[in-house]
Amino acid sequence: MDLVNKIRTGNTRAIAKAISLIENETREKEELIDSIHPFTGNAFVIGVTGPPGAGKSTIVDRFIQFERDRNKKIAVIAVDPSSPFSGGAILGDRLRMQTHATDPGVFIRSMASRGHLGGISTATAGALTIFDAAGFDTIIIETIGVGQTEVEVIEMADLILLTLVPGMGDEIQAMKAGIMEIADLFLVNKCDIDGADRLKSEIEYMLMLGSEQNKASLPPIKLASAKNNTGTEELYSSIFERLNLFKNSGLLASRRKIRIQKEIEHIFASKLKELLYIKLNMEENIGLWIERVYNREIRPYNFVNKKMMELTKENVL
Amino acid sequence: MDLVNKIRTGNTRAIAKAISLIENETREKEELIDSIHPFTGNAFVIGVTGPPGAGKSTIVDRFIQFERDRNKKIAVIAVDPSSPFSGGAILGDRLRMQTHATDPGVFIRSMASRGHLGGISTATAGALTIFDAAGFDTIIIETIGVGQTEVEVIEMADLILLTLVPGMGDEIQAMKAGIMEIADLFLVNKCDIDGADRLKSEIEYMLMLGSEQNKASLPPIKLASAKNNTGTEELYSSIFERLNLFKNSGLLASRRKIRIQKEIEHIFASKLKELLYIKLNMEENIGLWIERVYNREIRPYNFVNKKMMELTKENVL
Repeated sequence: MDLVNKIRTGNTRAIAKAISLIENETREKEELIDSIHPFTGNAFVIGVTGPPGAGKSTIVDRFIQFERDRNKKIAVIAVDPSSPFSGGAILGDRLRMQTHATDPGVFIRSMASRGHLGGISTATAGALTIFDAAGFDTIIIETIGVGQTEVEVIEMADLILLTLVPGMGDEIQAMKAGIMEIADLFLVNKCDIDGADRLKSEIEYMLMLGSEQNKASLPPIKLASAKNNTGTEELYSSIFERLNLFKNSGLLASRRKIRIQKEIEHIFASKLKELLYIKLNMEENIGLWIERVYNREIRPYNFVNKKMMELTKENVL
Repeated sequence: MDLVNKIRTGNTRAIAKAISLIENETREKEELIDSIHPFTGNAFVIGVTGPPGAGKSTIVDRFIQFERDRNKKIAVIAVDPSSPFSGGAILGDRLRMQTHATDPGVFIRSMASRGHLGGISTATAGALTIFDAAGFDTIIIETIGVGQTEVEVIEMADLILLTLVPGMGDEIQAMKAGIMEIADLFLVNKCDIDGADRLKSEIEYMLMLGSEQNKASLPPIKLASAKNNTGTEELYSSIFERLNLFKNSGLLASRRKIRIQKEIEHIFASKLKELLYIKLNMEENIGLWIERVYNREIRPYNFVNKKMMELTKENVL
């Protein structure tokens, strides 16, 4: 496949095309993923998450600079499942993309729900695979917001950085709760603002509540100001320190295996669905079935169980 | 089934037990859902959503009062997929539950991700069915936050109310974008705050952008202050006006049929997954398969396609 070779040389247009093929669920998708699969597994994937206004983009911009200073290639996947009216990339991302437009060592890609047939998680997983095969050393998944899709997406990362800022309302802070349990590293950003130390103590307190661990084994909490570029390089270093720790302890491998398990299960589920649609002539029949359930003539589980039994008896399933 | 009869009389303990049976994915679940299915389809389901801090709970509290004034039974499902450390109901809900603890005409149930084997959407769908069969006139689904799960859940409603407040940051407002497209009614809450009229204009502008409609056919935008109880009764009336409009136009029926379709597809998917796990002896084999994909010895799609073909050849699928 010519496209695969081009991806492997890091060709920007080939990478963009490949990601589109995957997110639009084209027929080429399967062959493409399988063809590049042998060349993956080398990139570190860092997840950057946190509530809106926590300065995630600025942090990621700093990381891009640090990586380029070290001559490393970096890709950023900015995930925004809220599918704004604007459709696609938010303004900030467009500006960022322009800044790095001429640098083949930086690739920024926005993912919004709109227009992704297979869903944002599938599209993100696909983009990860492409960037990995294209030789990017580091891939950042940056999420806008902290909903369940974002959690699903961020869990594809090898390491998760949660960014918080002092002085946000309690309700906004509450949103981070689900994600606190899976963060590997905390950043109190805008640390020059009043209340940074208090926020750090609060995070520590919540982490202690949520675990049986002693304080020493809790995830590190770093203070920085991305805007003023203080503490950011130390944060950057500690991320890679921790990634190497994960690599040596086997944690990295086990996380990646969980990611593979989810992928296999996902492929099986979609193949089964396809098959079912054909075997039951779903397209033609579903309307009538819905009507009958709606009119309370048939009951949902009883109906499905019967259909499954029919298929099994006919040796179809 | 004795439980079914108790549910139908509105017995509080029976309802609570039934919801637990469903959310814990017990074996009784299927029979229970099927048994009460004939007695459903009567309740109006109202979805109340919006960003944190928009005053959703206060609005819902007002609705509870208005319903009780009219001697109608009302159930509230408070959905919070962020699964906070506290686990389960948030403090506000607990207080609300206590307030109405002795009134059998009000039932408030919190749904957090934690501990729901089948996921929050399934649990919510189950609770809807139970409340419907138990004779509640109105069921409110209230979401905390506006992520993708919340959208999935809120789409189970017959009508969706989106609550916004003036003066929130742009980034927070951006979060509502995905949900703006599916809202049937807008509320500018805290309308005594500066900027309420401007927010109303902004909403109108965004709605005009997102559609080909003329201004007259756009969803209504109401102003109210839930806290001061001004404009709330008018809002409440317009919700039921609109619901009756939906009923007469056939929109209500078609929305409910979409809900049924999703339910049927969901049941099929879970049955198929069960079958696959047995036929492929998944439990025993998945570890080895993951290992081989991880070591790049096999490719994910090629592998799944082969397995599917084996099953088809053996007349298993």
